[in-house]
Amino acid sequence: MPTAVAGKGLEGVVAANSGICWIDGEAGVLSYRGIDIHDLAENSTFEETTYLLWNGILPNQLELREFTSQLALARELDQRIIDLMRSFPPSASPMEVLRTTVSALSFYDADEKDNSHDANVRKAYNLTAQIAMIVAVYDRLRKGKEIVPPDRSLSHAANFLWMLNGEKPSQTATRTLDIALVLHADHELNASTFAARVIAATLSDIHSAITGAIGALKGPLHGGANEGVMRLLLNIDKEGADPVEYVKGMLAARQKISGFGHRVYKTEDPRATHLRRMSEQLGRDSGKPKWFEMSRAIELYINEEKKLNANVDFYSASTYATLGIDIDLYTPIFAVSRIAGWAAHVIEQLDDNRLIRPRAEYCGPIYPSPYIPVEERP
Amino acid sequence: MPTAVAGKGLEGVVAANSGICWIDGEAGVLSYRGIDIHDLAENSTFEETTYLLWNGILPNQLELREFTSQLALARELDQRIIDLMRSFPPSASPMEVLRTTVSALSFYDADEKDNSHDANVRKAYNLTAQIAMIVAVYDRLRKGKEIVPPDRSLSHAANFLWMLNGEKPSQTATRTLDIALVLHADHELNASTFAARVIAATLSDIHSAITGAIGALKGPLHGGANEGVMRLLLNIDKEGADPVEYVKGMLAARQKISGFGHRVYKTEDPRATHLRRMSEQLGRDSGKPKWFEMSRAIELYINEEKKLNANVDFYSASTYATLGIDIDLYTPIFAVSRIAGWAAHVIEQLDDNRLIRPRAEYCGPIYPSPYIPVEERP
Repeated sequence: MPTAVAGKGLEGVVAANSGICWIDGEAGVLSYRGIDIHDLAENSTFEETTYLLWNGILPNQLELREFTSQLALARELDQRIIDLMRSFPPSASPMEVLRTTVSALSFYDADEKDNSHDANVRKAYNLTAQIAMIVAVYDRLRKGKEIVPPDRSLSHAANFLWMLNGEKPSQTATRTLDIALVLHADHELNASTFAARVIAATLSDIHSAITGAIGALKGPLHGGANEGVMRLLLNIDKEGADPVEYVKGMLAARQKISGFGHRVYKTEDPRATHLRRMSEQLGRDSGKPKWFEMSRAIELYINEEKKLNANVDFYSASTYATLGIDIDLYTPIFAVSRIAGWAAHVIEQLDDNRLIRPRAEYCGPIYPSPYIPVEERP
Repeated sequence: MPTAVAGKGLEGVVAANSGICWIDGEAGVLSYRGIDIHDLAENSTFEETTYLLWNGILPNQLELREFTSQLALARELDQRIIDLMRSFPPSASPMEVLRTTVSALSFYDADEKDNSHDANVRKAYNLTAQIAMIVAVYDRLRKGKEIVPPDRSLSHAANFLWMLNGEKPSQTATRTLDIALVLHADHELNASTFAARVIAATLSDIHSAITGAIGALKGPLHGGANEGVMRLLLNIDKEGADPVEYVKGMLAARQKISGFGHRVYKTEDPRATHLRRMSEQLGRDSGKPKWFEMSRAIELYINEEKKLNANVDFYSASTYATLGIDIDLYTPIFAVSRIAGWAAHVIEQLDDNRLIRPRAEYCGPIYPSPYIPVEERP
């Protein structure tokens, strides 16, 4: 019999032990393996942060060099995966394509049937490299452009921008994306990571877990929110409306404003601090401060009016827009980063596994209800 | 801050209210919408049971006729989905193919962007018809056989066997599979259904939720267990070993025997009762009682020795084997049935949604750990 009734949506329920990510929602603290996200955002790279998430400590110079080179070597997509993506209709959204293609990767992964710790680490390298490539390659394909081959001399962030745009990215663009990838790399038992752990805990394979996580990230209450923010900014711009008046109207119509509030943070999301700063800086440097200014006006109003803080999704929208990235790539880019955390959690789950199988509180017809033969039913 | 620490694997934690399925694990009771599984196994069909799961009450004659015809009309796979499956390597396992192809179905579903209740019901019809077809079509393709077009005059169970084998199934085979589909159609918050609800609760789409559920079902601690049982029986048979001696040896080597014990049931799994009876009957009727007899000997020994009961997976193995179904289709057939429950749960989740986002108990390095520059690291 069930022993504990949890808050709706498992709010406040501890569902696993984890040594990966520590959050203090009251104080606005996020840390990976004990290291504050502000230190990582200022000093680290996606490669180093991924090493930290997977190994529990920061790499020394040799370890970092090896790790970075392993990850770059894994930039390889089987030709049959590229052909598969070519066969998708151009109407397919990048998140549907990512979900489907990651699922298909298992066909060609030599370790598919090996669910050991070491095999999953190898698959994690592959998936981290491949997810970034799939997002970039599909964007080229749907636009009828040539695929850009990976450049293994570039960092993960720079190679992604290179494969996406076909030109070497500026230092500013690379560093901005790299910081965004560090900020998004893990967030404890968020919905997609939790979905990945539930799937992995049946002792299914890591491709199943990551495919499920991508499906969860797609939702507008999770990763999909950054696209929602940008659609709002675009609508305001199109109508030439005052951002505050526009948002006031939405609130009056009881519409939800994407990018505000968070289940865990009761104060500012520490990731928003960095994304706000980058959004402002990029706007100024590029001479296109519009998206930042619009965002800032909305943020101040919502802070005041609803006592809600901007979350990670709010300023990632204007940041990516100013970098010239298409709106429906914002959530895929979230996945390009979060694969680091997903893989860490799947491997941690399997290292000390138990099936995740809660109970429901029954609220249906009384038992036993009779089975009435069909000809006697009203 | 977390308020409640749950049992490992969320054992005994109530994670949702649900009116779909009620289980009494102590008494060995399983019911759908208040109706006992024994009544349904004896009297109902997969179509009627699916209607019950989705609508909360049994259909009258007209409703059942309409529902059955809607489900039969949904037996349609876009030619591009068939081409997609043709492009998969023959080494791809049916569960990998099912996961990937169901993900791709969203490309061609007219309701892909509509997450309303009514659109999800329409998508549930499609998915229920399509999952059965995908399993049958891929099995034909990988064997180099012609695809068998669906026969809309047949029941769901009969059409599946028809599309799989290319010959009209016997009444016994149809009724056996139909009962198996009724028995597997739902089981409250099992791991795959829970994964589907976690994904759906981000307001992602039903294809994402079902793709994730298929990934979870694939695991040997969940749907994959029935294949594990059959591999055991085949190994015993190949070695000409005594089943009890063989299993004794496995226990001595601390190996897990698939198909025994259940997180929820403390007594016999009520589904096992029917599968045991069908396995025995089929064995007798076909003159091939081997798999049943072997299974029964193992069951009696494990009951006695480990005080564990056979679960739903144990006798589904010998039942499907005697029907001549390939071993790696057992778990896909579980999905052919469980889509009924998955869809019911996704729609119930969305009708009263809240993001499912638990917390973790942190057990990693102390916060704040310093960020040491790379050149200073040991």
